[in-house]
Amino acid sequence: MRRYFTEEHSAETVNGRIGVDVAPRMRQVMASLVRHLHDFIKDVELTQREWELAVDFLTRAGQTCTDTRQEFILLSDVLGLSMLVDAIGNRRPEGATENTVFGPFHVANAPIRAMGESISLDGKGESCLFHGRVIDLDGNAIEGATIDVWSDNADGFYDVQQPDLQPKWNNRGRFVTGADGAYSFVGIKPVSYSIPDDGPAGDLLEALHRHPCRPAHMHFLVTAPGHQKIVTHIFTGGDPFLTSDAVFGVKSSLIADFERIDGATSWQAAFDFVMVQEDRFEHRSCSNVR
Amino acid sequence: MRRYFTEEHSAETVNGRIGVDVAPRMRQVMASLVRHLHDFIKDVELTQREWELAVDFLTRAGQTCTDTRQEFILLSDVLGLSMLVDAIGNRRPEGATENTVFGPFHVANAPIRAMGESISLDGKGESCLFHGRVIDLDGNAIEGATIDVWSDNADGFYDVQQPDLQPKWNNRGRFVTGADGAYSFVGIKPVSYSIPDDGPAGDLLEALHRHPCRPAHMHFLVTAPGHQKIVTHIFTGGDPFLTSDAVFGVKSSLIADFERIDGATSWQAAFDFVMVQEDRFEHRSCSNVR
Repeated sequence: MRRYFTEEHSAETVNGRIGVDVAPRMRQVMASLVRHLHDFIKDVELTQREWELAVDFLTRAGQTCTDTRQEFILLSDVLGLSMLVDAIGNRRPEGATENTVFGPFHVANAPIRAMGESISLDGKGESCLFHGRVIDLDGNAIEGATIDVWSDNADGFYDVQQPDLQPKWNNRGRFVTGADGAYSFVGIKPVSYSIPDDGPAGDLLEALHRHPCRPAHMHFLVTAPGHQKIVTHIFTGGDPFLTSDAVFGVKSSLIADFERIDGATSWQAAFDFVMVQEDRFEHRSCSNVR
Repeated sequence: MRRYFTEEHSAETVNGRIGVDVAPRMRQVMASLVRHLHDFIKDVELTQREWELAVDFLTRAGQTCTDTRQEFILLSDVLGLSMLVDAIGNRRPEGATENTVFGPFHVANAPIRAMGESISLDGKGESCLFHGRVIDLDGNAIEGATIDVWSDNADGFYDVQQPDLQPKWNNRGRFVTGADGAYSFVGIKPVSYSIPDDGPAGDLLEALHRHPCRPAHMHFLVTAPGHQKIVTHIFTGGDPFLTSDAVFGVKSSLIADFERIDGATSWQAAFDFVMVQEDRFEHRSCSNVR
């Protein structure tokens, strides 16, 4: 163990102090974090003044957090960290529906509605029929899958952001598939919106000359017994922000065609969700244990 | 520029969004930070649950900060980041006094006292005479150097941590050298103390099976016209925490012998401060400009 701090062996000195009986995963994660943070500081030769700005930035981020605002999640989102953690935790075989970020606006236990019902309760926006099937990798229908959906309203805000302006459960609902695996519901054609940018995460975006906008999307959380859950969005094809999503949520497989129906008064979007059986991963983790 | 996020090229995708006319240093620092944070997440395959714990940890750190408590500085300290930034910013030639962390407890404009005076105002602790010279690399005395000193009291707290229990300016003072460059003052023999460990930084230390203690030390900020300022401590030789300082502040050149004088009732410690002329670095920055 190194006795005293030196610039050359800074990370080894810090990691050499980790107790011998610290849990292996804790040791692995913290030692790696220390190595990478020290490498970063050495790489750019971070100055005392820049370090002070970083301390101030992180402090403001923490103090921006409230029960309904999570600035560190926003910060993780705009740096692509949330998407990376999601990608690593949800690697799936070719053909399965890809995950994307969960986001902070999901609310558990939305009303369960009949297939075809509307979730838009405020009468705003362009009506849009969402439909498709929930299937497995072999194309078989999955019965009893729950499709939990949520989106912002036509003004670009989720109901929980405007509790006094929007009806409760506006643009939210759950739908359970029958034997054919089909789902359908009426929402609105999604609109793009800005993430909250009046705090440190917004300041960072501005300093990097990046905009705070997300391309229009509908959120989906799809669960079914015996299958891995899918947390994803369907993005609106043609949205101008598809290639510059402030939180990097877009994957090309998640972009859907939105087509006009009934003349020009409303829209439809078709999207199938392809689920992976859970036992694929139960087998893998069994072999890890041995 | 990559259009959509992929696990493989995650950092390049994020950095590809930095605006073309962003200031070069901002670009350099943020692109490096993003690369290193993505590398860290990939290295350990950080899980969603661990990411949630990190978000919660950072949020609590921010919300622990007050006007008199800076949890992100503590966090930076216990991970060795503060010492690394200090080391990079204060590389000095052989023989010059080394820097160490400034710490959060300095107060500007402490009383200027006559050489030999006492800074201990609460009557606690073992009396200790600090003395030595302020010299340059050639051994010449530096006249007009200001030595700003501060320490915790015998109970292990700085006056600003106990405004109701300690006299203002307890264990603080400034001394200005004469033509001989000599300084002397009476303080107390420093005692080791715990950094504030009732917040997230303390939780982290506990998880790593590390203690929160700092070895006993006296803080010095030495300034003189035409010379680089020195921010450092003198550590008490023999302290049990010298090789496990919670903030990694110890360098072997900063450990002083503390000797008993006047029988056994008080102590003395001798330490010379060796300053580097400022123009060494003015020359360097001129050549950088050309």
